[in-house]
Amino acid sequence: MAELKNDLLLKALRGEQVSRPPVWMMRQAGRYLPEYMQLRAKYDFFTRVETPELACEITLQPIDIVGPDAAIIFSDILVIPQAMGLEVLLEENKGPLLPKTVATQADVDALITDGVEDSLSYVMEALKLTKRELNGRVPLIGFAGAPFTILCYMVEGKGSKAFDKAKQFCFAQPQLAHQLLDKITTITIAYLKAQVAAGADCLQVFDSWSGMLSSADFNAIALPYLKRIADELSPLCPVILFPKGSWYALPEIANTTASGVGVDWCLTPQQARQMAGPNLTIQGNFDPNKLLLPPAEIKKQVKAMIDGFGAQRYIANLGHGILPNIPVDNAKAFVQAVKEYGQ
Amino acid sequence: MAELKNDLLLKALRGEQVSRPPVWMMRQAGRYLPEYMQLRAKYDFFTRVETPELACEITLQPIDIVGPDAAIIFSDILVIPQAMGLEVLLEENKGPLLPKTVATQADVDALITDGVEDSLSYVMEALKLTKRELNGRVPLIGFAGAPFTILCYMVEGKGSKAFDKAKQFCFAQPQLAHQLLDKITTITIAYLKAQVAAGADCLQVFDSWSGMLSSADFNAIALPYLKRIADELSPLCPVILFPKGSWYALPEIANTTASGVGVDWCLTPQQARQMAGPNLTIQGNFDPNKLLLPPAEIKKQVKAMIDGFGAQRYIANLGHGILPNIPVDNAKAFVQAVKEYGQ
Repeated sequence: MAELKNDLLLKALRGEQVSRPPVWMMRQAGRYLPEYMQLRAKYDFFTRVETPELACEITLQPIDIVGPDAAIIFSDILVIPQAMGLEVLLEENKGPLLPKTVATQADVDALITDGVEDSLSYVMEALKLTKRELNGRVPLIGFAGAPFTILCYMVEGKGSKAFDKAKQFCFAQPQLAHQLLDKITTITIAYLKAQVAAGADCLQVFDSWSGMLSSADFNAIALPYLKRIADELSPLCPVILFPKGSWYALPEIANTTASGVGVDWCLTPQQARQMAGPNLTIQGNFDPNKLLLPPAEIKKQVKAMIDGFGAQRYIANLGHGILPNIPVDNAKAFVQAVKEYGQ
Repeated sequence: MAELKNDLLLKALRGEQVSRPPVWMMRQAGRYLPEYMQLRAKYDFFTRVETPELACEITLQPIDIVGPDAAIIFSDILVIPQAMGLEVLLEENKGPLLPKTVATQADVDALITDGVEDSLSYVMEALKLTKRELNGRVPLIGFAGAPFTILCYMVEGKGSKAFDKAKQFCFAQPQLAHQLLDKITTITIAYLKAQVAAGADCLQVFDSWSGMLSSADFNAIALPYLKRIADELSPLCPVILFPKGSWYALPEIANTTASGVGVDWCLTPQQARQMAGPNLTIQGNFDPNKLLLPPAEIKKQVKAMIDGFGAQRYIANLGHGILPNIPVDNAKAFVQAVKEYGQ
């Protein structure tokens, strides 16, 4: 395996001194890239995800075009419900749909938790191929959805503004919810271990809907499973937890074995630092909608953001995925602004 | 006009000593009530909103059935875009749809800001009728959407998870956005003044989507217009601002002339008190999904919530609207738990 020529991301996560913060963008392999849209026109979503050559090509596109300091494997958090035996449909421009949702003890009992190395072997193949093609240029990030967020989709069956059905399931049937969360955690840990074995240098766990929970409910429903994942994976590689919207949880996340935490823009850099303490690397938190500003203004605001967080123990990123209507030049301006920081 | 027999809500908002906190529920006139569903089966949404006798009947239903300490007039925040000249469609069980959205200077210039007393006279008629029918039993709350939230619908044209289009409009065309916000604010102030003249004892301003903004953007885009509304209306009656999700804004709201602030469940009572300071009445913050718990458990959790906020300068409420699938007995348990507090 080629040695990493750019290990800024890993250094920042280990708390080592860096000359400037690393930068990458959530959904950097995505619809704002014309090169991605060409593949999207030819292959449907799960073909792109399940064909290692396509997933690899898509993962590398932003590395070649936009130049961030890390690649993140092109995949989807809903491969885990699939590996657990649930059908997941995805129409382009619409959200996911799970025709059969989880509601009863029998539904939970029927879920598969083993064999993920085989059922999702295409992800591991994509990681191996991408790792080889990267040839040490930048680290490769693997990822999974957090157990609470995966439960949301498994119970609700689709995207939702507030995931009321999923929350009611958790509140009204806490024992069954914990059984489900436990099963999701078990398979997710095996999945992430397989990703590391296949070449992932770092892992991110997306708790995209944890912000719908009060801090007490986050501590009861989301946190224990994030902790377990961090405990199992941190000995293998740095783990970034991204409990989106759960600003209140930063002190709790700082008490896990995770190396990093993602934050959205609803928290100022100063608030995030104060809550996360000195030993957690913070990632974020540019509002993706601000990438529509002129490049000069983007650069000004990125500089202010880094000034706010400080250059150490910090990973420049968006607070959520890049949006389809962002010009590629603006994405480049974002990355370039970080690379120019301090020069 | 009959004197108020129950003025707990107004006392709490004025910071006067109360024997227990007042209680009401957002969307207390709504789909969880079988009596509401009967009217809904017969009359479409805008018929219910625009017919004073129906709006009055719907407003009174929860007062008679569930027994909260305040009535809130049955209406919709999107009557303001209608009064400004935009068509608003509403399919039951779906969100609103504005076929023609606001995008350009010409669109903003074409918006109507006067004559709201006439164009929305049916709301004022409904308030007068309801005030008479209430006969002093409880105070009557009038309401409007906050300018940023109304802008969201006018620009986006429909509900949205993140209102990216609306935010991009604000970020990319700030001058035009402020012109639009100014126009919405002007007509909203006239509308709320007319509501007070028609009998509203108290006003709530719903900034349902302000939580999508960073604190800096909230201060730039949402706050100035909330302030202007509070300044114009507070001399007439108590004003409650509800910038949902904007937990970071509590210190700023405390610096307005508003009497009260709504908070959702993502903030603990202790955090809310600390941020809001001693001179702002706080309203909230029960997670509506928890109303699916057994009534005994609801009562326990309501007591803990009031213990957390303290009984003074506090209005017991949900952190968001009551959901359609909540049993009426559970809604009653919520209200009853507050009424029993301290006994």
